[in-house]
Amino acid sequence: MQSLVLERQGELSLRDFPQIDREEEVLGPRDVRIKLHTVGICGSDVHYYTHGRIGPFVVNAPMILGHEASGTVIEVGTEVTTLKPGDRVCMEPGIPDPNSRATRLGMYNVDPAVRFWATPPVHGILRPTCVHPEAFTFKLPDNVSFAEAAMVEPLAVGIHAATKARIKPGDNAVVMGAGPIGLVTALSALAAGCARVFLTDIAQPKLEIGASLSPAITPINVAHEDLAARVLRETDGWGAEVVFEATGSPKAAAGIFPPLAPGGCVVLIGGQPDPIAYDAGAAMVREARVENIFRYAHAFPRCVNMIASGAIDVKPLITRRFDFKDSVQAFEIAASAPAGDVKMQIELPG
Amino acid sequence: MQSLVLERQGELSLRDFPQIDREEEVLGPRDVRIKLHTVGICGSDVHYYTHGRIGPFVVNAPMILGHEASGTVIEVGTEVTTLKPGDRVCMEPGIPDPNSRATRLGMYNVDPAVRFWATPPVHGILRPTCVHPEAFTFKLPDNVSFAEAAMVEPLAVGIHAATKARIKPGDNAVVMGAGPIGLVTALSALAAGCARVFLTDIAQPKLEIGASLSPAITPINVAHEDLAARVLRETDGWGAEVVFEATGSPKAAAGIFPPLAPGGCVVLIGGQPDPIAYDAGAAMVREARVENIFRYAHAFPRCVNMIASGAIDVKPLITRRFDFKDSVQAFEIAASAPAGDVKMQIELPG
Amino acid sequence: MQSLVLERQGELSLRDFPQIDREEEVLGPRDVRIKLHTVGICGSDVHYYTHGRIGPFVVNAPMILGHEASGTVIEVGTEVTTLKPGDRVCMEPGIPDPNSRATRLGMYNVDPAVRFWATPPVHGILRPTCVHPEAFTFKLPDNVSFAEAAMVEPLAVGIHAATKARIKPGDNAVVMGAGPIGLVTALSALAAGCARVFLTDIAQPKLEIGASLSPAITPINVAHEDLAARVLRETDGWGAEVVFEATGSPKAAAGIFPPLAPGGCVVLIGGQPDPIAYDAGAAMVREARVENIFRYAHAFPRCVNMIASGAIDVKPLITRRFDFKDSVQAFEIAASAPAGDVKMQIELPG
Amino acid sequence: MQSLVLERQGELSLRDFPQIDREEEVLGPRDVRIKLHTVGICGSDVHYYTHGRIGPFVVNAPMILGHEASGTVIEVGTEVTTLKPGDRVCMEPGIPDPNSRATRLGMYNVDPAVRFWATPPVHGILRPTCVHPEAFTFKLPDNVSFAEAAMVEPLAVGIHAATKARIKPGDNAVVMGAGPIGLVTALSALAAGCARVFLTDIAQPKLEIGASLSPAITPINVAHEDLAARVLRETDGWGAEVVFEATGSPKAAAGIFPPLAPGGCVVLIGGQPDPIAYDAGAAMVREARVENIFRYAHAFPRCVNMIASGAIDVKPLITRRFDFKDSVQAFEIAASAPAGDVKMQIELPG
Repeated sequence: MQSLVLERQGELSLRDFPQIDREEEVLGPRDVRIKLHTVGICGSDVHYYTHGRIGPFVVNAPMILGHEASGTVIEVGTEVTTLKPGDRVCMEPGIPDPNSRATRLGMYNVDPAVRFWATPPVHGILRPTCVHPEAFTFKLPDNVSFAEAAMVEPLAVGIHAATKARIKPGDNAVVMGAGPIGLVTALSALAAGCARVFLTDIAQPKLEIGASLSPAITPINVAHEDLAARVLRETDGWGAEVVFEATGSPKAAAGIFPPLAPGGCVVLIGGQPDPIAYDAGAAMVREARVENIFRYAHAFPRCVNMIASGAIDVKPLITRRFDFKDSVQAFEIAASAPAGDVKMQIELPG
Repeated sequence: MQSLVLERQGELSLRDFPQIDREEEVLGPRDVRIKLHTVGICGSDVHYYTHGRIGPFVVNAPMILGHEASGTVIEVGTEVTTLKPGDRVCMEPGIPDPNSRATRLGMYNVDPAVRFWATPPVHGILRPTCVHPEAFTFKLPDNVSFAEAAMVEPLAVGIHAATKARIKPGDNAVVMGAGPIGLVTALSALAAGCARVFLTDIAQPKLEIGASLSPAITPINVAHEDLAARVLRETDGWGAEVVFEATGSPKAAAGIFPPLAPGGCVVLIGGQPDPIAYDAGAAMVREARVENIFRYAHAFPRCVNMIASGAIDVKPLITRRFDFKDSVQAFEIAASAPAGDVKMQIELPG
Repeated sequence: MQSLVLERQGELSLRDFPQIDREEEVLGPRDVRIKLHTVGICGSDVHYYTHGRIGPFVVNAPMILGHEASGTVIEVGTEVTTLKPGDRVCMEPGIPDPNSRATRLGMYNVDPAVRFWATPPVHGILRPTCVHPEAFTFKLPDNVSFAEAAMVEPLAVGIHAATKARIKPGDNAVVMGAGPIGLVTALSALAAGCARVFLTDIAQPKLEIGASLSPAITPINVAHEDLAARVLRETDGWGAEVVFEATGSPKAAAGIFPPLAPGGCVVLIGGQPDPIAYDAGAAMVREARVENIFRYAHAFPRCVNMIASGAIDVKPLITRRFDFKDSVQAFEIAASAPAGDVKMQIELPG
Repeated sequence: MQSLVLERQGELSLRDFPQIDREEEVLGPRDVRIKLHTVGICGSDVHYYTHGRIGPFVVNAPMILGHEASGTVIEVGTEVTTLKPGDRVCMEPGIPDPNSRATRLGMYNVDPAVRFWATPPVHGILRPTCVHPEAFTFKLPDNVSFAEAAMVEPLAVGIHAATKARIKPGDNAVVMGAGPIGLVTALSALAAGCARVFLTDIAQPKLEIGASLSPAITPINVAHEDLAARVLRETDGWGAEVVFEATGSPKAAAGIFPPLAPGGCVVLIGGQPDPIAYDAGAAMVREARVENIFRYAHAFPRCVNMIASGAIDVKPLITRRFDFKDSVQAFEIAASAPAGDVKMQIELPG
């Protein structure tokens, strides 16, 4: 019954972590206990491993990693009505205060009180079991695998971005960045109504993976080609109705408006540690709308529904799977950022 | 150089119609002249043929039928900039007053001054050529056929309905009615982000055609099964976020709220000659939003874009094609409403 | 320490009601205990008194009345952070399940689990004290009186209606019905951006009260004048961008579309026991949007803010006040529906 | 019959300008001819006078100034239906191509083909008469004066900003900048539903004028006080739901997010010649929406309606009036930016 523990920056171990059982595993009346099955490795997990911190969140004590998860319910609280032992589920990793002002307004993701897995000091779920609120645990249809279900968390970012964009059917979109988040955003944009997605990156292998996902995705290597010129040329000079920025690169962020159509929307997904250069004049003449998003809200059941119906296929994004016993090696590989990989997952022992 | 003329209720003829040349074929500076290629047969065309009127619009003089059209530009006005002879195009059949209050607001479809093809006293386009404003003529990419392009007009109704619904990705939808408009609405709802569509009808062959379009379409024969019970059962008791009413049947319209989720949206597409029974209490407890739509606006370029990219495939809906010389026979067949047909089209001579 | 108890239909008494203390008055960690100060008499309170039921809600056991309330915090739970003893407050009478799907989405008013004061079997607050969640208890600025604060509940209906309408500044509105809800809706519509409100009724005294509230309110007695003709005449034939139906009369509801502008919005506020006649054709040619609302959500702090800033003045609507010892008489007067009254309030002993 | 001509940077003259009669004064069938009555002096007029250019727009030839105007119709084209000689009117200074893509979508203000008065090479209207399209000429009710009507143009900027913000009734707003545009924005925000406006500037006289307009306007001198700290303190730590940036100052623009509430909206009104520093992290944790606006669209009839009904009072903003013969002096005074003035107007001879 081991957990994957980030002991400190650069040091991972697979070991017992008994504190969890005492401190966080009390089953409340509206909680469920879940046996973990599959956990995806997120860039933030890797970043804690390699850097020991993300912005203000610092790893000061051993912390279990992992927050993209699926599993099986093994016990339910006394007031739980929608789940029962044996149900296959995926879990939303952030738990807000249900009574906060933001949560009541339906924006629980911006509640400052959110506790989010694998964000210090909250432990992640690369461990045998966890306790989670029924309200943030979502039952899987039979045709959604544990591996697909562990993709719901990153997909939720793309679906949230696409929802905020208020895409109209037939819109053209630009997605800047062909990393995992860029790819789920491209898939989400298409599923949400876009006719075409212009996908940019400077790494050709990533663009090739992106282009393989759909004929409606047009890869553009912005190391060699001007994005705005290309988009305008392919849209009769009108531009793309939506631009998603998913690189977190200040340089990319400085170019969000030239390819944007009049009345269009920019969605900033990628985090930016420093202020970016914002061309207010270019934004003004287009009457651009800029949406800034933070994780997601209400997206999990939508993602499960779309994977189940075939509206979105996440399977091509899962490029490697590891047994739990090989977790440390998995993180070492992930930290090397291999060009041909999108998402690596770890399968826990049955 | 013949046209298909509805001489009066029940009488069609294929003949010269020289008035058109004199009266309506003057090429203005921002107009284009188009040689027609393919024209779809709409239920309204058939209704004028069989009944001689639709509501207040009465066929009092011989009228050329047809308004779902594609063709080739053969001449352009002096100020036209976006089209040139040889361009393959499809055309929006309604022309508003560009200076009316509704048009300026972007709602040209509700401008009372709209002149709409094949709506008395305006002629349709089952004729060799027509003159049309550049602004309502849309260039086709090479990979969109004339047959697909003539489907843009009915598809636009579905896309407009889906746009008005403001679908969020992962929504479930009900589409009431599996006729041509119901089917384009189902395809539009999926393309616009719905995970699933529950498609209803009482004619099993129509439901089978609908179900063949996508695994995400679930047919429900409401002659034998309760719609709301089924939808609630398949959505954990929540209901469908969107309900499209595309039958025009008062009975169907009376059942729009029971399958609807809290906060959901009903889109009324089907015309209703008489007031319908509206269960305000059922609407209230859900805080339903009801959108009433009239044709479409701004949908044509979106539809062309989605057909070109593969986001929507309209080809399975084109079930029969006729040569222009067989137009009268085509209308006779259409008037018999054959069970296995969705859309019949007429191809004009080259 | 008495309460106003509806013993059964038609029988009120002012008496001790000790059960409350035992059953509902346990102070949870996030609750506050409030000493009641002012309680308004709502039409629903009167209806329970005169009819013993409202739809499915039947008074089967003695029930304390009242749900429009203000008071003073006298005790706070261990985890309360935003309130302290001595704070003057008003309270939202409906408490949802914070973990329900509707509540998480921000639509707690349509959560079927809502417990609402003075709706059988839940007691109201015409009693000395009550316990209420901090999250639904709102602190009053010094310049908002208890009397004004007890108007927040009915005002919230108007503000919610105006919010759902998505009024644009300069819109013209129709408010059908000049009862208490019609009047708060008219004030809300003006405060939310409408330039003018056409207020209708068939009772001239109510219209005169309405007209006295603002020069921007134009009273129209629809017993003597055609609403649509008047509105179209005063809006250059365009119509009103928003129509609020606040009568609950089927006849009024049948006339919601003729005065409505193209692209306009109807908000149905008044409850309708039976299906209403809905002119789908009239709705269609305008592309009307119809919003159906149920009570309110998130409106209380907005109302307090607007009363405090002077954006809305509710004082003219408070037409009579009674001491608590005269409560039964107050209800008898209210049940007689005196023409010159809008809102009667009861002040509890200090 | 003289005009106020900017001969070149720094040189104004009042003289005949006969070219206008020949080149731009042909009355089309849907045009009206207007005798000018009152023209307001805009900061852009002054800027052309003092600098000879605004961004890419350079005064290369003598140009008549003025674009905030009211007057009287003296002649109408053959197809004009809504206006007649003698009608008092105000005019929207920008005329788009009615058939452009942006215009058809209802966003005529972002049509690149817009011709805008007093923007080189288009002449303004400090001249005896002008010809203008009926569609952009708005009839005045009897109770709206010419002086108020000439305020519609600047007010339209505020109303457009408030409309784009999608204010909900009871929102709190920050308006950065207490110049003319800041003040019309503050009035617009209140009229559009805001309960309070926190108005900032570093010039105390401007703040005092702002504060005098409404008790709901709270002036904050940001030379001496921290804006975000103040707003958070007065909103229970929540922030303002809307922040309008109307200074055009990069420093102000760098502070748009700290006072903003979760889920709030920033509207950038003030033009910025250079890219501004945009704190994407601060925008992200709030899920801010940023609207960038350009002039206005569809706002004129709304403004007229609100002035007529009393919803907005622009009279306190008109601080000085000049006879046309004193126009040059008026511009000299305006160029000195006197502290106590908001809007100066010029009245043309009767």
